Amino acid sequence: MSEKFHHIGKSLPRVDAPGKVSGLTRFITDMHFDSMVFAYPVVSPIAFGALDGVDISPARKMPGFLGAWFAGDIPGENQVGVILPDQPLFAQDKLRFVGDAIGIVAAETEVDAISAARSVKIDTTPREPILSINASKMATGKKIHENNIACEHRLERGDIQAGFADADVVVEADLVTPYQEHFYLEPQGCIVVPQGDAFTVYGSIQCVFYVQKAIAKVLGISFSKVRVIQTPTGGAFGGKEDIPSEMCARAAVAAWHLQRPVKMIYRRRDDVQWTSKRHPFQMHYKVGVSKTGKLLSADIILEENAGAYATLSSVVSYRATMQAMGPYAIPNIQVHSTSYYTNLPPTGAFRGFGSPQATFGHERMMDILADRLGMDPVEFRLKNILKPGQETQTGHALSTSVGAEATLLKSANAAEWQTDARPMVSKDGRYREALGVSVCHYGNCLGAAGWSMDGAGVKIQINRDGSIAVAFGLIEMGQGALTVVTQMTAEALGVNAERISILPTDTSQVPDSGPSVASRNIVMTGNAIRNAVEKLKPILSTAAAEAMECAPENVAFQNDQVVNTKSGNALSISALCEYLYVTNRPMDALGWWHVPALTYDAQTGRGEAYFTYSYATHIARVQVDTLTGQVRVQKVWAAHDVGKIINPAGLAGQVQGGVVQGAGWAIYENFGHDNAGRITTPNLSTYLLPTAADSVDVQAFWIEDPEPLGPWGAKGIGEPAIIPTAAAIANAVSRIVGQPMNQIPLTPERVLVAFEDKVVHE
Amino acid sequence: MSEKFHHIGKSLPRVDAPGKVSGLTRFITDMHFDSMVFAYPVVSPIAFGALDGVDISPARKMPGFLGAWFAGDIPGENQVGVILPDQPLFAQDKLRFVGDAIGIVAAETEVDAISAARSVKIDTTPREPILSINASKMATGKKIHENNIACEHRLERGDIQAGFADADVVVEADLVTPYQEHFYLEPQGCIVVPQGDAFTVYGSIQCVFYVQKAIAKVLGISFSKVRVIQTPTGGAFGGKEDIPSEMCARAAVAAWHLQRPVKMIYRRRDDVQWTSKRHPFQMHYKVGVSKTGKLLSADIILEENAGAYATLSSVVSYRATMQAMGPYAIPNIQVHSTSYYTNLPPTGAFRGFGSPQATFGHERMMDILADRLGMDPVEFRLKNILKPGQETQTGHALSTSVGAEATLLKSANAAEWQTDARPMVSKDGRYREALGVSVCHYGNCLGAAGWSMDGAGVKIQINRDGSIAVAFGLIEMGQGALTVVTQMTAEALGVNAERISILPTDTSQVPDSGPSVASRNIVMTGNAIRNAVEKLKPILSTAAAEAMECAPENVAFQNDQVVNTKSGNALSISALCEYLYVTNRPMDALGWWHVPALTYDAQTGRGEAYFTYSYATHIARVQVDTLTGQVRVQKVWAAHDVGKIINPAGLAGQVQGGVVQGAGWAIYENFGHDNAGRITTPNLSTYLLPTAADSVDVQAFWIEDPEPLGPWGAKGIGEPAIIPTAAAIANAVSRIVGQPMNQIPLTPERVLVAFEDKVVHE
Repeated sequence: MSEKFHHIGKSLPRVDAPGKVSGLTRFITDMHFDSMVFAYPVVSPIAFGALDGVDISPARKMPGFLGAWFAGDIPGENQVGVILPDQPLFAQDKLRFVGDAIGIVAAETEVDAISAARSVKIDTTPREPILSINASKMATGKKIHENNIACEHRLERGDIQAGFADADVVVEADLVTPYQEHFYLEPQGCIVVPQGDAFTVYGSIQCVFYVQKAIAKVLGISFSKVRVIQTPTGGAFGGKEDIPSEMCARAAVAAWHLQRPVKMIYRRRDDVQWTSKRHPFQMHYKVGVSKTGKLLSADIILEENAGAYATLSSVVSYRATMQAMGPYAIPNIQVHSTSYYTNLPPTGAFRGFGSPQATFGHERMMDILADRLGMDPVEFRLKNILKPGQETQTGHALSTSVGAEATLLKSANAAEWQTDARPMVSKDGRYREALGVSVCHYGNCLGAAGWSMDGAGVKIQINRDGSIAVAFGLIEMGQGALTVVTQMTAEALGVNAERISILPTDTSQVPDSGPSVASRNIVMTGNAIRNAVEKLKPILSTAAAEAMECAPENVAFQNDQVVNTKSGNALSISALCEYLYVTNRPMDALGWWHVPALTYDAQTGRGEAYFTYSYATHIARVQVDTLTGQVRVQKVWAAHDVGKIINPAGLAGQVQGGVVQGAGWAIYENFGHDNAGRITTPNLSTYLLPTAADSVDVQAFWIEDPEPLGPWGAKGIGEPAIIPTAAAIANAVSRIVGQPMNQIPLTPERVLVAFEDKVVHE
Repeated sequence: MSEKFHHIGKSLPRVDAPGKVSGLTRFITDMHFDSMVFAYPVVSPIAFGALDGVDISPARKMPGFLGAWFAGDIPGENQVGVILPDQPLFAQDKLRFVGDAIGIVAAETEVDAISAARSVKIDTTPREPILSINASKMATGKKIHENNIACEHRLERGDIQAGFADADVVVEADLVTPYQEHFYLEPQGCIVVPQGDAFTVYGSIQCVFYVQKAIAKVLGISFSKVRVIQTPTGGAFGGKEDIPSEMCARAAVAAWHLQRPVKMIYRRRDDVQWTSKRHPFQMHYKVGVSKTGKLLSADIILEENAGAYATLSSVVSYRATMQAMGPYAIPNIQVHSTSYYTNLPPTGAFRGFGSPQATFGHERMMDILADRLGMDPVEFRLKNILKPGQETQTGHALSTSVGAEATLLKSANAAEWQTDARPMVSKDGRYREALGVSVCHYGNCLGAAGWSMDGAGVKIQINRDGSIAVAFGLIEMGQGALTVVTQMTAEALGVNAERISILPTDTSQVPDSGPSVASRNIVMTGNAIRNAVEKLKPILSTAAAEAMECAPENVAFQNDQVVNTKSGNALSISALCEYLYVTNRPMDALGWWHVPALTYDAQTGRGEAYFTYSYATHIARVQVDTLTGQVRVQKVWAAHDVGKIINPAGLAGQVQGGVVQGAGWAIYENFGHDNAGRITTPNLSTYLLPTAADSVDVQAFWIEDPEPLGPWGAKGIGEPAIIPTAAAIANAVSRIVGQPMNQIPLTPERVLVAFEDKVVHE
């Protein structure tokens, strides 16, 4: 590009690093308010059954006990379903999972609150819990809700039967992906501070506007009486998208009754038992190809374990449905997705949001098909990969920023992918290695299903000393939002980044900017910044021209100065700001951007499902220890089409983290529950999260195929970073063991069994 | 007026009343932050002299002592002068009044901090203090600053000598007005919360942007690193205009060093000793009139006691100078104002800001002149009172909203003013009564001297449920700002007031809106609200037209609904807001307004000193007990030209409070100091503030002569409410005792002496 940037594309060090490194940053656990008390939920001890009654008399005898509140004590509506109204704040009759909240207890200290909550006697009539998709599907007589289906989506395009008839090869496969627990470093936490009928909420929160809405509903008050301020958030990964709404609303009920600030921090074990995880998927793919390797038809069935409440299942499965066949051109396709209720914790948002599951489906299928065709997996993918002008599976003709092929070529080239690449065996035969490839696309922002909340705002405030404060409606959760917002503001205004400070996200600062999800911060906030600066620039230019006695068209903002391009005279930004101030000019501006209208038909699943897509290819070199079955990822070549790089270091961090988190899901993470619906891996001694020793050597590459609607051409990266990893690893392991590894995690047991099967069959 | 208002002109109950009445409102003393410590200043024990050294070893031995910081420990600039750079944050060499800050001490508890601060040994070389205007003027050799003059102003118009030559009567008089202590219920207080290099300040503060600027300078950090949030403020009256800047900056130095939240609340005795008061004025008026009662010429000398630092003296005396001859047409005038430094606490802003003093001058003169002409005081005033088209004393031809005459006629009529009204004597002769009249004008907002900071902003945020949050840059300090901002927003948007909440004033919400002074809230914030609504209305109308399927020009906002004026169909505001939300429209707007440019020449004092004026007449019926000398105000008829009434109940409250505060200054308040510069009336057992028993029966009248630049025609009222009272009382007492009472307060001693003089002379 000929345009020269001063901040875009530069690795500005993380602006939140000094506070986090030095310990100055105060998280919600560090915060205290005068007269503050502590709360803890009273929850269902059973996975399924009837709630017959509660007895709080043991709690009353506990030290520091202040009160307990149940469904009947809710001032407003007993409902916190984020999309469907299927979830009471406090269960009244039916109990649907171990951890289903029944009420809330408050006490003077945290320990007292937990003890008192646990001491409440809960009378129940248990039923046999429904603990799997198949059990939910098959269940007769005892439904979890009115029926056991939380939601469905359909996509139909072309004529799949005709497609299969034309196909030379038709392959079917079942694919299974597991739960994944977010295991954010910082557990869920909040403080609700009441002031009469108004409430200020502080918390580790991804979506401040969701929390505002939830509390307004539960307390029966207006939005303007609920102010939500995000505190520095120690990881989220989607796990703090909807959960803080129910958590804060519960604390708010206690605050409403007590009129004292109420703090609640979930213990790790409870956090794991009570809060959302990645949806387990079971998928059936039937795909037909010509013998030349052209995709002709696909019939895809996606089934998701939604857990006890629908929460975000409808949008998670929407995304999986829209992306089920990946970034490939395919004329005939049908996808049917169904989310099933079970008596397990609700599943919801987790980085990728249905995409890693769908990508596991289509990318395993691409390798299986390539094998059947006797074709190299990369070559086969290249024959089908989406190119500009081609249509997505939803029939959306993409004209710009379609970098899928470039990511595939880049990573294959870097990994020295050989068309005859077969598994390499070490000298002693114990360790075997292979490469695996996986390609994905990711619809940016919320898509058609969430279009009505796909706007976001910023407020830029210029001070007379030339310092600049920016408020934005999305959040920093570790992904580097504060840093890129700083860079984008500096670039848009043409000033030094040191001038810029970012305010804590606060519902009172900017309008409802929707959720901080869907890799949407750079696109939404970046465009909103540009919108605000469009409003500020004429004011700044007119003032500068006045101060420098020249024509406004001769004013340019360069290198933290205002320059008279004709005379070469310059004015410092600080001097300009002082001039703005003393001439009584307004020194702030609001910016707003929303995703353009999308044509999409929910009946057929056709149209513009998303306004644009990010693309990525991961190639993994994987080693299997044939003695122990252990899988190690030796290296990942990760090429991402990000439209335009904002911060290379941040981008590399996202991809490093995404690959490791993807590897964890693919290999280690052993989320489990017993047949009473109790999670058996509720802490780090039982749940096998990748450690530093399991980290992966990642070589990242960037494709810059600018998206015209993205700010400076940029697209989202947060989720694409994790999406292709698991399938790349599974594809490599499949090559190594010579068996299709269609289920993850690739635990030693599973790998050894597959390998032994292979050996037996050979 | 034909226009029908739904909120303007209605007595909406105070929106802050429920919290204040119920005790839910939390003032700064009620607030606590985790790890918070307390601070207290180390101050000069002497009024004048050299600081030779400090010894903190006694403080080190005190319990809970955390540290002590002095001039050398200030990270930035040791300077807090609000206009002139004459005031160090911590005195380094020269000590200029008892209470001059030398440093700050922090300790774990409030009591420990105060004890530790008091234990610091301060070595000084005292000098004879300068304690009066005359002593300051006369002082040779020992100057308080480079010289003893803090500031000067001049106004010259016409030819005063020619004017005096034409005059039939020329009268000269000396007039003296005293100190007045604000005695806000809530003393000065703040909490500074550090987070690395950023600071959030909470406090009982009139001018959040002043505090931001002061801390940025003292800590050497940018404005965007200082966020100032006003806490509910228990009275201010100008006393929290500049003082919080120095107070918060001192606490910020401790917070900077400790990196812990620092709280500081001044004890009442210290608050009185250390903080600003109303300037004592001594004035010399020489005024010439024709025998027909036309004012021809005035030569006025104003001298102000500025105390130890200039603080706001230059703008207080600017206002007094610009208004020195009152709302009368006078062709020839000269005013010369000089503020003198003394070794007493700095004087500064106090409701009226120089106007009550100047009004005491011109209104006593008007009565003295009327007496000399044998003319009725009201009749004499009517001959000279400013009328539309006439010029003010600064030569500003006023074309609109000149309600001076109307206020005079209204109150005189209501009081049944008789042209032959002489003092009435009670049957036993002990109690005598008379009426006194006083007229004033008050330049709205900051005027030419403060034009460069005379802008203000609002942010209006509409929520999807139809609730509306408003942020504004000025503050509620008891005057009813929150209530009128609610009304004006409701009126501008055409919605119910219940929808509206007002956010705490916070420097991060809106741009620098200048100080909350000069009766400027209604004018500035009202116009900014209208500006914001001008931006919102097209968005709202377009959306409403879309939702109701009609033309935008047929959309009207009425009675909390959007109405299709053609079909009569209506949409609730809540439904419209939900529609705005789901169609992704921006739902907030910033508003800005600034006073139009003023022509004013500081050399000659000629031009537009202010863009418009409020007018008022107070007539007081006063009783003197000739045995004890006690003065009682029996009734005040107060007519105010407010342009347009926003809230009649609030207006009545302002005038009731203003009259009582004016009566306090005129009769009771006995501010005193000893000859070491120590205040002898530092609490309510010694300072005679009017009590409820001294309250005045006020009958208020409103003149609505709309100001085209005021929102809905409104002008300021906060200060006009107090301005004319003292002179009206003094005029009545002068009539009763038959002697010119040219000095207040009218203490029993002073009245008895005057009365006895009169009796002796009779």
